[in-house]
Amino acid sequence: MRLDEQATGDLQRGAALLGTGGGGANYLMTQAALHAVRRAGPVRLLAPPELSDDALLVGVAMVGSPVLSEEYLPGQAALTTALGRLEQRLARRADALVVCEVGGLNALYALVVAANAGLPLVDGDGMGRALPELQMISYSIYGVHGSPCVLVSSRGDVTLIEARDDSGLENLARGVTYRAGGVTHMAGYAMSGRQFKETGVLYTVSLAVRLGAAMRRAGSDLPGMLAALQAVLCDSTYGPALVLGEGQVTAVERPMGDGLAYGSALIRCRHGRLLQLHLQNEFLLAELDGRTVATVPDLISVIDAETLEPVQADQIDYGQQVVVLGIEIPALMRTPAALRQFGPRCFGYDSDYRPLSELSPRLTGGEPGVQVRARR
Amino acid sequence: MRLDEQATGDLQRGAALLGTGGGGANYLMTQAALHAVRRAGPVRLLAPPELSDDALLVGVAMVGSPVLSEEYLPGQAALTTALGRLEQRLARRADALVVCEVGGLNALYALVVAANAGLPLVDGDGMGRALPELQMISYSIYGVHGSPCVLVSSRGDVTLIEARDDSGLENLARGVTYRAGGVTHMAGYAMSGRQFKETGVLYTVSLAVRLGAAMRRAGSDLPGMLAALQAVLCDSTYGPALVLGEGQVTAVERPMGDGLAYGSALIRCRHGRLLQLHLQNEFLLAELDGRTVATVPDLISVIDAETLEPVQADQIDYGQQVVVLGIEIPALMRTPAALRQFGPRCFGYDSDYRPLSELSPRLTGGEPGVQVRARR
Repeated sequence: MRLDEQATGDLQRGAALLGTGGGGANYLMTQAALHAVRRAGPVRLLAPPELSDDALLVGVAMVGSPVLSEEYLPGQAALTTALGRLEQRLARRADALVVCEVGGLNALYALVVAANAGLPLVDGDGMGRALPELQMISYSIYGVHGSPCVLVSSRGDVTLIEARDDSGLENLARGVTYRAGGVTHMAGYAMSGRQFKETGVLYTVSLAVRLGAAMRRAGSDLPGMLAALQAVLCDSTYGPALVLGEGQVTAVERPMGDGLAYGSALIRCRHGRLLQLHLQNEFLLAELDGRTVATVPDLISVIDAETLEPVQADQIDYGQQVVVLGIEIPALMRTPAALRQFGPRCFGYDSDYRPLSELSPRLTGGEPGVQVRARR
Repeated sequence: MRLDEQATGDLQRGAALLGTGGGGANYLMTQAALHAVRRAGPVRLLAPPELSDDALLVGVAMVGSPVLSEEYLPGQAALTTALGRLEQRLARRADALVVCEVGGLNALYALVVAANAGLPLVDGDGMGRALPELQMISYSIYGVHGSPCVLVSSRGDVTLIEARDDSGLENLARGVTYRAGGVTHMAGYAMSGRQFKETGVLYTVSLAVRLGAAMRRAGSDLPGMLAALQAVLCDSTYGPALVLGEGQVTAVERPMGDGLAYGSALIRCRHGRLLQLHLQNEFLLAELDGRTVATVPDLISVIDAETLEPVQADQIDYGQQVVVLGIEIPALMRTPAALRQFGPRCFGYDSDYRPLSELSPRLTGGEPGVQVRARR
């Protein structure tokens, strides 16, 4: 697959959907990606079987505030510096780049870096969605170290971190990023082709493109779009999309002092049922009339029923008409080891993870207001 | 000169005096230094003329909270890691270590690292006192870069910073150190022997040892001790010690939320005159009856009149009997370039630096309560 201009536009929408409200608003990064692809030509997207086992892959990402990331579009220097410094440290050139976080802006960011570096991108990522911390990544859970990791600030200061573990890396990287103005350019999670095949959430970049293409083709037809998304998901390692609720946002609570995208949103669905979405950068937990119906790491994605665009957690607003989808994450992201890093309790929720497919029979057991548009 | 056990004990007191209330309480670090010197033998202190111009010197220091530094004594791993990683980055072994900050604990810290690495220490430092930030150092002011700079946390996480300038280094290093639990072990300010001779405040380590020896020999004789300190200072590049005031601490103000060593202390001197010391980690500005009589970077050192020990800014307390000394800093530390980095305005005081020797004629102009014990 080649990521050309059209695929880049599709990637934007698909990545926003997989971002579950977070991972950074990606409109401006899409413009940067379109510019890069126009200038350097389409970027090759390598399917995992195309990767040689001993290829050197390097992960790239923007780290930091999803809001501030809109203010720090990558300049040429920052783009090449992090990758180049990591290659220096490894005394080897990268053969391809890997996406750390497919949801939000980081797939597009990796596309920009790949176009500028003249490298292919690999089809997969380490989250299959968006998650807020560096160690919340399948690469780390299955044995690839984030260190050595290079962070470059927008003013060009370079920091190389070699932490004993990826929680230590996250801790230091967050400190550096905060001090660097809220955003840094990262290169890390160096791995072999074989390690990627063993530890990555595979085919997620092409999935995001396919989801985005389905949304583009559906135009303003909401039922048609949901059916098209369903068709794409059914041909993936994700579960099908379940409609957790459809209705109007009647309250948004954002406690002061806990960041912009923190709090909850209440959606009044048919028959007066109330769907509450708890959010921390991403939509992380959904309760229907007080009963948990979906939790992180499964995806909870909100679509604006009028524009048919995915809604960011920091922009969900009173009065909005929305459709809330639940999508079960691939198996690699919900093992016990994975849930210890990003299960609901990691975010302070007093709830254990249960897969959507276990919750969904109840959801569809004749309860009004929640419809499953399609089943696998 | 060789830094043996007795010199180490003397260094403790002298460094505390030069620390002007800050730079870290150094009792525990002295124990670590005594242990290291007993184990590895005395450390050679190289006078600047003994240094070859092309020797590679590396600065070492503990960075972070003066209070927390008491809780993070250097383990063997942290001691060798920062230096070793910087040597790796420079692809060259260090010939000797340099002290960054002679005041407080960092001269003793450098002694511990030198003993463990089997390297000599160089006689001089970058501050001639204690100062709170990494770029507030003569090396930086006169052209030596702090970067590449390695910071190692007590858990062994390694961060290498290559910042565009030393304010950028300070900013990132502070973020890393905060995240690392408040203290890190630093190696940086790599320089040649020639650069050291041009940019360092020379002979300050041996000065600290001589000051400490003078204090030790004076025992409990305060006038004798002041005279002995005077004799040592008159044989140095510092100005003589002026007694800014002698009396009882009648008030200490420490506004909440601004760190432990922030605020001011009021000392009631003879004839009811009030000496106010403004402190931020160090004693930075002294006012006698509202008139500025000494400012950073000149030294304002407080001695407990009963124990004859230097008093830390975070421990000056109501009821204490103290003698406050002002000592003019060597010329290298009060050029316009130096004052732009650590003049009074850098700490938020609405006052320009004036050397103590300009202020002292007024101090000694027949005003009661302030006596100059000796003049050069």
